[in-house]
Amino acid sequence: MVKIDSKTRFIGLLGYPLGHSFSPIMQNAAFKSKNINIVYIALEVKPQDLETVVKAIPKMNFAGFNVTIPYKIEIMKYLDETDDLAKFIGAVNTVAIKDGKMKGYNTDGIGFLRSLEEHLNIKPDGKNIFILGSGGASRAISMTLAMNRARKIYICNRTFEKAEALVADINKRCGQISQVVPMNNERMAEAISEADILINTTSVGTHPDVDDIPIDKDLLHSNLAVCDVVYNPRKTKLLLVAEKLGCKIMSGLGMLIFQGAEAFEIWTGVEAPANTMFEAAEAFYNHSV
Amino acid sequence: MVKIDSKTRFIGLLGYPLGHSFSPIMQNAAFKSKNINIVYIALEVKPQDLETVVKAIPKMNFAGFNVTIPYKIEIMKYLDETDDLAKFIGAVNTVAIKDGKMKGYNTDGIGFLRSLEEHLNIKPDGKNIFILGSGGASRAISMTLAMNRARKIYICNRTFEKAEALVADINKRCGQISQVVPMNNERMAEAISEADILINTTSVGTHPDVDDIPIDKDLLHSNLAVCDVVYNPRKTKLLLVAEKLGCKIMSGLGMLIFQGAEAFEIWTGVEAPANTMFEAAEAFYNHSV
Repeated sequence: MVKIDSKTRFIGLLGYPLGHSFSPIMQNAAFKSKNINIVYIALEVKPQDLETVVKAIPKMNFAGFNVTIPYKIEIMKYLDETDDLAKFIGAVNTVAIKDGKMKGYNTDGIGFLRSLEEHLNIKPDGKNIFILGSGGASRAISMTLAMNRARKIYICNRTFEKAEALVADINKRCGQISQVVPMNNERMAEAISEADILINTTSVGTHPDVDDIPIDKDLLHSNLAVCDVVYNPRKTKLLLVAEKLGCKIMSGLGMLIFQGAEAFEIWTGVEAPANTMFEAAEAFYNHSV
Repeated sequence: MVKIDSKTRFIGLLGYPLGHSFSPIMQNAAFKSKNINIVYIALEVKPQDLETVVKAIPKMNFAGFNVTIPYKIEIMKYLDETDDLAKFIGAVNTVAIKDGKMKGYNTDGIGFLRSLEEHLNIKPDGKNIFILGSGGASRAISMTLAMNRARKIYICNRTFEKAEALVADINKRCGQISQVVPMNNERMAEAISEADILINTTSVGTHPDVDDIPIDKDLLHSNLAVCDVVYNPRKTKLLLVAEKLGCKIMSGLGMLIFQGAEAFEIWTGVEAPANTMFEAAEAFYNHSV
């Protein structure tokens, strides 16, 4: 429940199509709890209209916006400035507007990082990390981990060339810390045996296909922290199996909350009420997921 | 207090600058009471940005918008279609968006008319009406009354030429029902003696100049219904004096509510909860005016 008056500023969420998104509920709970007169609104924009809308938003009382699928890359060409990490990742999910100028950020990887620290008490420094998938989420997470002193990043993807391209991008910037792993059990076992953290960045296991698992469970071992970017269900098959093995596990919900918390802080300069955001998202979760 | 999710549609209020506006509070109370997932938001837009913003709004999940000062005339050139009464008035305060097309309406005069009927139980049919002022509000009210079978419409304005132009516009469409009255007491007295309704459409008497009155009080008579478009204060000096004389009186608040109720009905096709809107506006009123 939010209050709107003629002095309210807005944050938009641009995407298409917009399904059920946590963000309006979560961000509005945060703005309200901090007594900030900003309201978060979801704006569905068709691909052919993105430019028209993006040019208009800084001309209204908007403090910024989030960008979601399918616009995280395309948005970049309309921005006045882009943060270094977002440039490296090659995608923007958060835009701040100041004096009519738009600056882009990527908080997806930082969201993952904060969740890892807050929920599992793990810092990426010196860690070996095994990542399944090489799409947008993998890119944001792997590059943010690389920039935060991870020791080794293995990228394993069905399409080998996509994994190679991501590895090359990481290594160009961060030295030879990343390596492709072909999707066969022998090579995967080798890399995973060295890994501290395993992250699924693919959509495998998402509702309704909750019995799917993105990796042979025999490849897991109990010293792994196992993370999923999937948040619906909260505990995917991968996480259930890992938990049984005694692994530390982490759902995608934390990344979702903390990418929002980070964006909140960029827009407002105020520390995000992460607990409030969690509670709001969980309430929504329990109702609709 | 409103709820926003990813399926919420929006109604904007375009103006510059946006002071304290009743509309967000009043319309959001109405949408909420009718369980309609639309939220009303005030969008401050600078003159040089109007075109950019107006072209973008139909590309997002907006059901329409209101237009206020200074854009009621300029907006017309961007619309796909304009309602007949709005065309006649030459100004638009309400735009409905359907299938990406924008249609303009003017609900200001109808708001006045509905308030007159609801609060004073007066219909304009066959009435002689004396109007002070010939600006935007006068134009909307006089033309709406003319289209609703008023018998005679006197327009009295300090700048005679502006009154003449408005009278000519009314008569071109509605026959010789309107007449200019020069701003001198003798000629005014003559017209007012025949009048059933007197309407102040100027801003004279608005807070903080609450002791100002737009007309010599000796020109009033007890058979007049006296109406003010000023709503701050609720009872202007003009209304206080008229009330003392035994006149029926009507504040500008009713017009404000009913122009909103009419707009609500255009956007939603649902009967507006006028009482809810009144209560919301009055609560806001008592807090801030």
